Amino acid sequence: MRSTRPSIARTLDVVGERWSSLILRDVWVGLTRFEQIQTDLDISRKVLTERLNHLVDHGVLERRAYDRRPRYEYVLNGKGTELVDVLMVMVGWADKRLTVTAGPPVLYRHHACGEISHVDLRCAHCGQPMHAGDIELLPRPRRCGMNEHSRVTEAVSRSRPMTAAVPHTEP
Amino acid sequence: MRSTRPSIARTLDVVGERWSSLILRDVWVGLTRFEQIQTDLDISRKVLTERLNHLVDHGVLERRAYDRRPRYEYVLNGKGTELVDVLMVMVGWADKRLTVTAGPPVLYRHHACGEISHVDLRCAHCGQPMHAGDIELLPRPRRCGMNEHSRVTEAVSRSRPMTAAVPHTEP
Repeated sequence: MRSTRPSIARTLDVVGERWSSLILRDVWVGLTRFEQIQTDLDISRKVLTERLNHLVDHGVLERRAYDRRPRYEYVLNGKGTELVDVLMVMVGWADKRLTVTAGPPVLYRHHACGEISHVDLRCAHCGQPMHAGDIELLPRPRRCGMNEHSRVTEAVSRSRPMTAAVPHTEP
Repeated sequence: MRSTRPSIARTLDVVGERWSSLILRDVWVGLTRFEQIQTDLDISRKVLTERLNHLVDHGVLERRAYDRRPRYEYVLNGKGTELVDVLMVMVGWADKRLTVTAGPPVLYRHHACGEISHVDLRCAHCGQPMHAGDIELLPRPRRCGMNEHSRVTEAVSRSRPMTAAVPHTEP
């Protein structure tokens, strides 16, 4: 059932709820233990337990015992680390487009070049910038058993290229 | 008040609610009129009206009359188009990391190179891949009046570089 739902909706199942995304951010920046996250977010133990279980169930966090009682810390696995990429892009949009008083609270130093930088969206093929206004949407060739988003696919088949619709609407 | 909240939470204020993100997606692919979106999403007129007003109020969609009655269509402005970038990255994560039966419903042809491609996260400075595991988080120098995320900033100050914590947790 899940597999036929839109990709956006399925991603929001995991991080659309605010606590979930803020917990992932906390684990990412090094607040990995229950008490640390609870203190940082000022969240009830009940809700934090629920959201941590949710993230573990979705396979983005792993629970690890760190003493014999046992008590647990939470770590990102590969799937979770890639989900943090989505959060980084969210933060980039907010820092650029929403009113802020102080700028982003942390800076990113890129290991490859050593510079303070930020993420940019590039084409995986040619490496040039690739944003929503830089692409033409094409319907995916229909395959046996494919039924996801058929109306969206049809809309793309009928519509004009995005770049004709988007840039002139900039205020 | 809004400006001191975390960037992730502020972004989710706009697109964390599922209908809002699916409406943005529809407008992006060319379903710009109320009736088209309603049919595609199978959503009540009341809820669709509320969510469209929400997106217009947040300055990501603009309402335009397209006949004299008047009836309206909705178009992305620059802020909204950049928010679609976030949705593209969400879709990329879902298509890679969540179970799908049919693959993405649409393909992206990049105008700059003409190839079917997808977005990749790169360093704005050097152009090399820049994902959550490729960076070191640094506390931003404190400035007068800065109070956002002080605990997160402190956590970053204390924590080890992200790359020491993340890669070995891959299952």
